[in-house]
Amino acid sequence: MRFYSDNTASICPEILAAIREANEGQAKAYGEDPWTQRLDAALGRLFDTPVQAFPVSTGTAANALSLATLSPPYGAVFTHEEAHIVRDECGAPEFFSAGARLVLIAGEHGKITPDALARALDANPPSVHTVQPSVLSLTQATELGTAYRPQELAALAELAHRRRLKVHMDGARIANALAFLGCHPAELTWRAGVDVLSFGATKNGALAAEAVIFFDSRLVADFELRRKRAGHLISKSRYVSAQLLAYVESGVWRRNAERANAFAQRIGAAAAAHLLHPVEANEVFVRLGEAGKQALRARGFEFYDWGAESSGEARLVASWDQTESSVAALCAALGTL
Amino acid sequence: MRFYSDNTASICPEILAAIREANEGQAKAYGEDPWTQRLDAALGRLFDTPVQAFPVSTGTAANALSLATLSPPYGAVFTHEEAHIVRDECGAPEFFSAGARLVLIAGEHGKITPDALARALDANPPSVHTVQPSVLSLTQATELGTAYRPQELAALAELAHRRRLKVHMDGARIANALAFLGCHPAELTWRAGVDVLSFGATKNGALAAEAVIFFDSRLVADFELRRKRAGHLISKSRYVSAQLLAYVESGVWRRNAERANAFAQRIGAAAAAHLLHPVEANEVFVRLGEAGKQALRARGFEFYDWGAESSGEARLVASWDQTESSVAALCAALGTL
Amino acid sequence: MRFYSDNTASICPEILAAIREANEGQAKAYGEDPWTQRLDAALGRLFDTPVQAFPVSTGTAANALSLATLSPPYGAVFTHEEAHIVRDECGAPEFFSAGARLVLIAGEHGKITPDALARALDANPPSVHTVQPSVLSLTQATELGTAYRPQELAALAELAHRRRLKVHMDGARIANALAFLGCHPAELTWRAGVDVLSFGATKNGALAAEAVIFFDSRLVADFELRRKRAGHLISKSRYVSAQLLAYVESGVWRRNAERANAFAQRIGAAAAAHLLHPVEANEVFVRLGEAGKQALRARGFEFYDWGAESSGEARLVASWDQTESSVAALCAALGTL
Amino acid sequence: MRFYSDNTASICPEILAAIREANEGQAKAYGEDPWTQRLDAALGRLFDTPVQAFPVSTGTAANALSLATLSPPYGAVFTHEEAHIVRDECGAPEFFSAGARLVLIAGEHGKITPDALARALDANPPSVHTVQPSVLSLTQATELGTAYRPQELAALAELAHRRRLKVHMDGARIANALAFLGCHPAELTWRAGVDVLSFGATKNGALAAEAVIFFDSRLVADFELRRKRAGHLISKSRYVSAQLLAYVESGVWRRNAERANAFAQRIGAAAAAHLLHPVEANEVFVRLGEAGKQALRARGFEFYDWGAESSGEARLVASWDQTESSVAALCAALGTL
Repeated sequence: MRFYSDNTASICPEILAAIREANEGQAKAYGEDPWTQRLDAALGRLFDTPVQAFPVSTGTAANALSLATLSPPYGAVFTHEEAHIVRDECGAPEFFSAGARLVLIAGEHGKITPDALARALDANPPSVHTVQPSVLSLTQATELGTAYRPQELAALAELAHRRRLKVHMDGARIANALAFLGCHPAELTWRAGVDVLSFGATKNGALAAEAVIFFDSRLVADFELRRKRAGHLISKSRYVSAQLLAYVESGVWRRNAERANAFAQRIGAAAAAHLLHPVEANEVFVRLGEAGKQALRARGFEFYDWGAESSGEARLVASWDQTESSVAALCAALGTL
Repeated sequence: MRFYSDNTASICPEILAAIREANEGQAKAYGEDPWTQRLDAALGRLFDTPVQAFPVSTGTAANALSLATLSPPYGAVFTHEEAHIVRDECGAPEFFSAGARLVLIAGEHGKITPDALARALDANPPSVHTVQPSVLSLTQATELGTAYRPQELAALAELAHRRRLKVHMDGARIANALAFLGCHPAELTWRAGVDVLSFGATKNGALAAEAVIFFDSRLVADFELRRKRAGHLISKSRYVSAQLLAYVESGVWRRNAERANAFAQRIGAAAAAHLLHPVEANEVFVRLGEAGKQALRARGFEFYDWGAESSGEARLVASWDQTESSVAALCAALGTL
Repeated sequence: MRFYSDNTASICPEILAAIREANEGQAKAYGEDPWTQRLDAALGRLFDTPVQAFPVSTGTAANALSLATLSPPYGAVFTHEEAHIVRDECGAPEFFSAGARLVLIAGEHGKITPDALARALDANPPSVHTVQPSVLSLTQATELGTAYRPQELAALAELAHRRRLKVHMDGARIANALAFLGCHPAELTWRAGVDVLSFGATKNGALAAEAVIFFDSRLVADFELRRKRAGHLISKSRYVSAQLLAYVESGVWRRNAERANAFAQRIGAAAAAHLLHPVEANEVFVRLGEAGKQALRARGFEFYDWGAESSGEARLVASWDQTESSVAALCAALGTL
Repeated sequence: MRFYSDNTASICPEILAAIREANEGQAKAYGEDPWTQRLDAALGRLFDTPVQAFPVSTGTAANALSLATLSPPYGAVFTHEEAHIVRDECGAPEFFSAGARLVLIAGEHGKITPDALARALDANPPSVHTVQPSVLSLTQATELGTAYRPQELAALAELAHRRRLKVHMDGARIANALAFLGCHPAELTWRAGVDVLSFGATKNGALAAEAVIFFDSRLVADFELRRKRAGHLISKSRYVSAQLLAYVESGVWRRNAERANAFAQRIGAAAAAHLLHPVEANEVFVRLGEAGKQALRARGFEFYDWGAESSGEARLVASWDQTESSVAALCAALGTL
């Protein structure tokens, strides 16, 4: 029974059907197909504002292309020290931006506070000798399974904008945050001050489909050239766009996220004594001790270690396609620890 | 009736079925799934030699990652002036390699001759003041729809290796070349001296699936880090690998290519008086004059202009899923010009 | 007797004196010293227009920083195939620009014609799949010892600007061109349409001093950050600026260039039967045959081979500090071949 | 009276004389001159071991070229959070390395401890998803005016090597550390495990002269190509090398450092109540309060603020050419605070 990652999940039926339906005859390539042509409108309806959206096939590409468009090579991107762009992308932001620097900010439960951001900005005053503060990148839901509230986002974005930074959101799991908070997509993004969003669908039911969404069309700048140059302009674009359209238009984005979140809540409740962070999305972080982890594994549960070696910490991720029985079994097992 | 590009083609049934079949339950991500784990063996059988293969989702990624692995930032990549890496990738080779230079070589029908390569190498003797000759990149089939014979490849590779260059092949349409020449895949690749191959499936029936294939495992070097860093390590890797497995194991790679090639032969025969290049794959290049092109378009044929403005040239591409009737109609129309 | 290169020349007395004079007590660093502070004004007087000028210590830095400021990473820089930025900078333009491409243009005697530029531009129409034409880079005097006339420059710059390119001039030997043509510095630069100039002093009498001169202050953009980031902001900037000030204010720039040019004229006259290019600066290109070159070398003359192996070609460079006797001896020797 | 920085200092007589003496006639360029040819031997004598040394003109170039040679683009460089490469080079390490990441380590008085390094390495275990630990970069003397003892360096280097990192030392002020500790140059470098040294002369009496010194010739790798490509191969190399030769062969490197250090000791003693860090080189860091700083400035002392705004901190730097009277005046003024 696997609780490794939502990357292990399968394609949900709505999206697989959409790929099949898009597979009728020929369609123009490189974004000139009818599916891609209607992506802006569909995402604009979801977010209740005009947007410009660009499909790509991985979250790393979405993040790194966003950052490279917002930051010059000598720019600084302020972000949480646990962010995916810091720990899991092998330096993609530096590569795509031709050398921008990530300035790391500590913070409880994977979140940056305005105070911490202010301190980091104050500690990095720009001069000709320094990298230039350019972007604030926030992760929603965070890498530790928590979710920023709209007012938290707004306070951070307000500070960032005041200091002339742009605001990027890594929304690989934004659906989970939206489902947990019961917010409208606008509330957690542009209304809170987000300029550019990496909108993830892959972890939540797609084959491979993410979109970079610009809420301010002036920021698009040279994004399309950077995407092409990075090998991320998909030739048969209809198949990525069809996934995204089905994802947002069928409402499966919310249903899948709600399902995964509900599983995580049950797991979190069963592991209440061991929780490292509040459970606010589909990930549960626990300290079980090495013995506790071994006990779970002995019963057939698969998951990743977390934290430093011999910290006894573990990450349990509930995917949209988790079976009821696997979750029930996990909860039962956690109850015995 | 579309003859724009094989990028407009749909997914062939064998590959769509493979995606559906791979969609059972959870699978480990990032290449640790059973499909990806068996890719080396399957491609090794196709090429009759042990290989290391890495799936990616675009041909531009396959090419640029290959070149960045083979060339240092101060390297020079020798290639035909019409190559895809020169004209259609927005500088991806330069981006991925951190600045390597493409040295362009002219040559009839999209092909480089050993003499031309020797002249280009002689004109670029290395010193501390110059970029360092590092790679020969060949396109098979070429961008002008022709195919290198095995002995042509061998002569070029032998010269390249003697001058200490590695040999890369852009095989976005290698299936078409193999089908035209009736060669075994080994003959057009490692037996002829190719070190690294961009093995394309997308144009010939896949959704989005290419593989970088190393025939010499020592050259793999840091490829995997470069791929991850470029956002080209697909999380749900099973779906890309399943496409590639179905492509090579079902034999559809050859059937689709033969079908497209046969269409191109018919179109070429119908346009014999107008041909710019021999028809040796699935692309037909013709000079029809502006009036000729207009006449075709008036009858509902869609295709790209080619060459300089008002050259009267056009490119007609036959995809694997071209309809018999559209090809017949095109041939008839060409006959009347 | 050395005719290798003007890089072998010594520091002229005016400039060495200026370094010594600047060496009084402490001075603020990184361009805030009084010498650097007055550089814009001094160069503005020389060029008869307001400029913004930035000292650096090598011509490669001046060129590559200029191009990186004018071209995006996915840009194309159009230039002569023999240009220094092509053949002698180990890919510095690609490095500084994060991957811009040099598009090479052939042309007699090291010069680009408007027709050739127009053809190159027409052959590189921009789309999302291609690098974006961004800069025309001209070398004055050219790498083959010739000089563009003001009207030639103006025609090229007019075409470049019409096609939305910026115009860079590599003026490592601009003093020699100015001396040969008897032009005012304005005539060969901004009045002819040059936007940014690499203004060289090193070859013509300095220790190590070049300036990047912007004739349009809006183009300065992020130049200073790029220079710092490349390690080319000299801490003890006064010593570079003092060289440049002495160079332009004493008039030695013209005297040294006239002296070197006059030597080249005498050598050119002595080698009239062997000339490959008109002698319009301080370099003389000759075809002497291998025997001829050996004969010269046997008499103690040192110089570089030129062109392809066994072409029998040679380059003879006259520096500002060439001795009368060495030039007379060389002319005599050439006369006997 | 200026205590801004040792970058404001003038050229010392020994070095200016060496430039003048090197200015006799022509000399081959790009490192083939007799001065550069004898640099390895001279520096080898200083360090009591064979070395390969490469002159450059700025410390930023020396550091960034060193790091780019030791780290791949996806590498991580571990360094103190106050290091010059972090705070004062505008992202040069990232630029030269094509995107390597600096991993910042906190530590008292500008120094990294082995424990802190071990923790940082443990927190960054390599996988295909992460940047790859590649280099430890130490600053000697540190940015806070302290000096690592030989055994401290050895412990750090031993740990770094055990974890397969290379060890770089930013020795912009290594002469000051050597003078303070009374060590042989070998003790603070290769005998302690340093692989590559940025050897600074500029701050300590040169015009502009630094050398990258490799103690292990296998690490030189492609350094020369990277230097050329970055515009840091000086054409008239004799003048940089002559500075370095005079610097080490005359012993002025030690005399100048001793003089500056002695001034700093006096200043440190006068400011004993206000010291932020031990005074172990030529820099004195003090907390004087805003009033204290104003009082000093009112008496004509010039220096930089330090730390956060309104921290009341200041940096007082003693250069080799500080006048006795200015130091005495400063000490007196500090005594009155």
